[in-house]
Amino acid sequence: MKTAAIVGASGYVGGELARILLGHPDLELTQVTSERMSGRYLYSAHPNLREITDLRFRSLEELEPADVLYLCLPHGKAISRIDEFDSVAGVIVDCSADFRLRDPQWHVQWYGEEGAAEWRGRFVYGLPENRREELVDAVYISGVGCNATAVNLALLPLAREKLIQRVIAEVKVGSSEGGTGASRASHHPERAGAVRSFAPTGHRHQAEISQELGIPAESLFLSVTSIEMVRGILATIHVFLESSLEDKDLWKIYRSAYGEEPFLRIVRDRRGIYRYPEPKLLTGTNFCDVGWRLDDHGNRLVVISALDNLVKGAAGSAIQATNITCGFDETAGLGFPGLHPV
Amino acid sequence: MKTAAIVGASGYVGGELARILLGHPDLELTQVTSERMSGRYLYSAHPNLREITDLRFRSLEELEPADVLYLCLPHGKAISRIDEFDSVAGVIVDCSADFRLRDPQWHVQWYGEEGAAEWRGRFVYGLPENRREELVDAVYISGVGCNATAVNLALLPLAREKLIQRVIAEVKVGSSEGGTGASRASHHPERAGAVRSFAPTGHRHQAEISQELGIPAESLFLSVTSIEMVRGILATIHVFLESSLEDKDLWKIYRSAYGEEPFLRIVRDRRGIYRYPEPKLLTGTNFCDVGWRLDDHGNRLVVISALDNLVKGAAGSAIQATNITCGFDETAGLGFPGLHPV
Amino acid sequence: MKTAAIVGASGYVGGELARILLGHPDLELTQVTSERMSGRYLYSAHPNLREITDLRFRSLEELEPADVLYLCLPHGKAISRIDEFDSVAGVIVDCSADFRLRDPQWHVQWYGEEGAAEWRGRFVYGLPENRREELVDAVYISGVGCNATAVNLALLPLAREKLIQRVIAEVKVGSSEGGTGASRASHHPERAGAVRSFAPTGHRHQAEISQELGIPAESLFLSVTSIEMVRGILATIHVFLESSLEDKDLWKIYRSAYGEEPFLRIVRDRRGIYRYPEPKLLTGTNFCDVGWRLDDHGNRLVVISALDNLVKGAAGSAIQATNITCGFDETAGLGFPGLHPV
Amino acid sequence: MKTAAIVGASGYVGGELARILLGHPDLELTQVTSERMSGRYLYSAHPNLREITDLRFRSLEELEPADVLYLCLPHGKAISRIDEFDSVAGVIVDCSADFRLRDPQWHVQWYGEEGAAEWRGRFVYGLPENRREELVDAVYISGVGCNATAVNLALLPLAREKLIQRVIAEVKVGSSEGGTGASRASHHPERAGAVRSFAPTGHRHQAEISQELGIPAESLFLSVTSIEMVRGILATIHVFLESSLEDKDLWKIYRSAYGEEPFLRIVRDRRGIYRYPEPKLLTGTNFCDVGWRLDDHGNRLVVISALDNLVKGAAGSAIQATNITCGFDETAGLGFPGLHPV
Repeated sequence: MKTAAIVGASGYVGGELARILLGHPDLELTQVTSERMSGRYLYSAHPNLREITDLRFRSLEELEPADVLYLCLPHGKAISRIDEFDSVAGVIVDCSADFRLRDPQWHVQWYGEEGAAEWRGRFVYGLPENRREELVDAVYISGVGCNATAVNLALLPLAREKLIQRVIAEVKVGSSEGGTGASRASHHPERAGAVRSFAPTGHRHQAEISQELGIPAESLFLSVTSIEMVRGILATIHVFLESSLEDKDLWKIYRSAYGEEPFLRIVRDRRGIYRYPEPKLLTGTNFCDVGWRLDDHGNRLVVISALDNLVKGAAGSAIQATNITCGFDETAGLGFPGLHPV
Repeated sequence: MKTAAIVGASGYVGGELARILLGHPDLELTQVTSERMSGRYLYSAHPNLREITDLRFRSLEELEPADVLYLCLPHGKAISRIDEFDSVAGVIVDCSADFRLRDPQWHVQWYGEEGAAEWRGRFVYGLPENRREELVDAVYISGVGCNATAVNLALLPLAREKLIQRVIAEVKVGSSEGGTGASRASHHPERAGAVRSFAPTGHRHQAEISQELGIPAESLFLSVTSIEMVRGILATIHVFLESSLEDKDLWKIYRSAYGEEPFLRIVRDRRGIYRYPEPKLLTGTNFCDVGWRLDDHGNRLVVISALDNLVKGAAGSAIQATNITCGFDETAGLGFPGLHPV
Repeated sequence: MKTAAIVGASGYVGGELARILLGHPDLELTQVTSERMSGRYLYSAHPNLREITDLRFRSLEELEPADVLYLCLPHGKAISRIDEFDSVAGVIVDCSADFRLRDPQWHVQWYGEEGAAEWRGRFVYGLPENRREELVDAVYISGVGCNATAVNLALLPLAREKLIQRVIAEVKVGSSEGGTGASRASHHPERAGAVRSFAPTGHRHQAEISQELGIPAESLFLSVTSIEMVRGILATIHVFLESSLEDKDLWKIYRSAYGEEPFLRIVRDRRGIYRYPEPKLLTGTNFCDVGWRLDDHGNRLVVISALDNLVKGAAGSAIQATNITCGFDETAGLGFPGLHPV
Repeated sequence: MKTAAIVGASGYVGGELARILLGHPDLELTQVTSERMSGRYLYSAHPNLREITDLRFRSLEELEPADVLYLCLPHGKAISRIDEFDSVAGVIVDCSADFRLRDPQWHVQWYGEEGAAEWRGRFVYGLPENRREELVDAVYISGVGCNATAVNLALLPLAREKLIQRVIAEVKVGSSEGGTGASRASHHPERAGAVRSFAPTGHRHQAEISQELGIPAESLFLSVTSIEMVRGILATIHVFLESSLEDKDLWKIYRSAYGEEPFLRIVRDRRGIYRYPEPKLLTGTNFCDVGWRLDDHGNRLVVISALDNLVKGAAGSAIQATNITCGFDETAGLGFPGLHPV
């Protein structure tokens, strides 16, 4: 049993980490911090945890050593205090974007912040399906971007085969992606029923996709649209292929890549309602479902992927990566199968 | 053609007044005020009005005389500046709660503000179905409370016949009732899908119900629950009757009361989906639909009413009252029939 | 490890039982039946179970003995084949309404079916909070009605103290309560955003409430309204009390009744958004949350309860009752804490 | 005043035509047909029209001559009875797909039905923004496909300038697009909250887009995703341009094309929530809002369009086309500005 602490636990990713850790067989959640809510019960921020735990928030000043430290601070904050965190943690998992990009120049370009090159090189990008071997020995793990993960997991098998010529991804997202900060844009009468072009171009997760898939930025087009949903992502990804393929080729490629993956499922049925991935079935789970449909012409493919942005797109992948690093069963704590109907 | 101005037009009721007035055959909207948005286009607050009008917000200081002045200020603000408004308006319609209660003591009790007894007596409560005759000569009109209106219109016919012994009303409401102010409670991830006991007891609209129906406060129980909806109210009202009734008696009572009312419909079908009132069908309309179901025992009745809180529950009733006062066709500007499906 | 089988597993309650049983430490799901889907995978009806299990539906004819047999047939079907089921099962849990009412006359009255008096007497009503001792030795367990359970769990502590004079319950429900059968009323364009008076009076669950609380039917008034929600129930219950109470009395009564109950939580906070029970937090969980607000006058109370109709209102209570009967940890398989935000 | 009749008026497009015609100053709705509902009130199918009209459905056999005949039959039915309809109507507007495609071969290819070449040539495609001059003298008008219209109106200005090299359109749609037929897929517990890949490739509306924009089918890629919404379409359209453009070029192109169009609005604000088109604001209106965002590289553009599938995407365009043909004010009956919030 190792101890875990969450820094910045009042947000949605922090809450989701707490939920998973409180049911984890090998990790014990012993500390949660929040400056704003210091002294109050964890359940006052995350009411689903009422009577599940009597942990209280403490301030960062009161943070004591932990085997695994999860950082859920606003982007830019982890970089500035990383030495301090390093001194109290065995393993650090940073859920912000601070250490996702390997290339310091690129980080500067996309996030407008200092590169922190020396630290950057130590972090492993925490996507088990692409970095499992590096994660085994990792001490510093970077969390993943939720939209990036939906695209990365959809396309990894194709990217490894060098089949991708050009990608146009339209990612549909829920409101929890925006975090806990209330604003006019998130005000229910304005946000309910919205189909809102949040980022038609220029979304920062493009950098992570480019890095993980090895696709040049100029071949990658991403639009993000907010829809009526709290949790969940559906990515509809038009892929122009380097060479013409048949459906059986795709089955082979995806099965070969994901047949042994515990959280990747191929969803491509001939009948029924749920023939392609659907995010609502994945609410609360660590699954990423992937399906596709090949154009008649054979050189264009629509790949569809779904996941829960707070689990597989954030806290779940972070726990899965921790499980690998710590030598636990990779699926420990991540067994919730999801609900139907929901 | 008379001129109309809206003070405090950046809120939801102000926006709804603007929408209706811009399509009104006898009233011309010439001024809209907002301190915060002064100088900006009306459509920047109410994007449905883009290219419908090029009116811009002005500040209250710039307000010029108007035949009809609609006040949509936060509760408490109209009282404090009523003399000032009186000097520039022919007719004043105040949409806040400032002048709804006739009895100054009662206003003090429910709103904790000064009574303003002299002004209070001049205002007519702007519910045409109950105050049509007084409205004909009114110069000062008070808007109505939306939840109160759902209950009042459901029960007026019974109250007039002195049939009501005790009332337990459960009112289900949408998020627009809370106004434009964003908060954690209205933040989409928290508010979406909520079924939230907003006011299990003690809602201030009880005072208006008691006043209009002539029922003592101690016989009236009101609970208000917020549900997943932007616009709309459904009131489920359990009525214990003074004497046992049959269904045909109720038909007679309601038809007699509402047969000539242009915006009241009895909805009580034997088959189909929409056998009882349903608020989504009323979105954007000035209708209040009313239905009922009598208990087998005959002395308890469930009355059901539905309306759009921003129209019949606010702006629509205000325009209808204005039409009466100004001698226009009572339905002028209020012809939108509603949509299906929606 | 005991074996479990579900008869009629293609419906929503059957699917929820399957989900819970597939994660249960002491029960192994070995058979699922469906005439319509015989031969197909369980996940073709319940897509959340894809790659969780490779169980296939079989027909009832193929049913083999099981330690625990869950019956999820349409109302009326279990009675007619109960001898047959009895011959292959150690314990029978019937999730329909066939054996909920103890009194055969009452069953005839409310359901218009034969009384089956001899079998009826053998069944224990499967609400652990009210029947725990009887359940210890039960061989035949009846499932519970979801709406009834929301009201029963809200009021049990008061009923035991003989404090209830009259009850008016307004129960707000989601669409999954209606089962898997598609119809015009459940067609998404018609059902979405609905606030529909499903049963203003005369809902059959009144009989179960009356039976479990010991309140005469003539003191109990129930209205059921369908709202925009898939899973979940919120009951807003106006209680007129036999004697005047203070808030501290209520705390004492509820804490005394529910302090040791593993799935009952008192939710009554002074601040925050989630001051009262809220069903969305309970999606997928076996919790029933209960709160209240006392009227100023002291003799009227609004009690609020929330639960997931498919879990605590059906499959979850059935598993909890099974755990008691079989001598397992009462909470086995029911540990999912729920999500936030959702 | 001319008379209008709707054949097949029990469906959603028929109901929307009825709503608009009942408020039209120059057209009088005198007949509605439905075989299934013959003899019943129009409002029994379209409850929003309760007390708006007392029209009753008649059977097709009882159809009498009308100046304008709207056909809202299932695809394939209008072709087979067109001679019959021709004999009783002055102008025919067919809202099905039967006569949308000019090229008989193409119709056979996409719809698998006979070409009916002689009739096909007489029909004008009823999209006023592209066919206004032809519509002036039209006697036979074809309705438009809703998804096609969202893409066509988004891209017409670019297509006219021969700027389009390749189009990848992701169209998000509501449930009313599927019509009134209930099915498991439209069952609320399954459809609510869905983000469902309805047609990742091969949607038949591609043919209409290709025809109206003059883009070869092989340059046009369309995916359609069903989301939580009843009415509305948002099209997110990635356009690869023939030559590099600047933002001011686009303003010029779109303003020049749509500056005088009564129902096309350019929505592209720098601040606020509604910077791009948003379908919920258009519920019930005949507007199509269009916006765009240019990629940094200048040769890729994301064009965004929104409309109400039942109005601008069907009934509204049909009425607008009728207004042109009949010489009425083009906007007659189509003045509803939409609601906010909603």
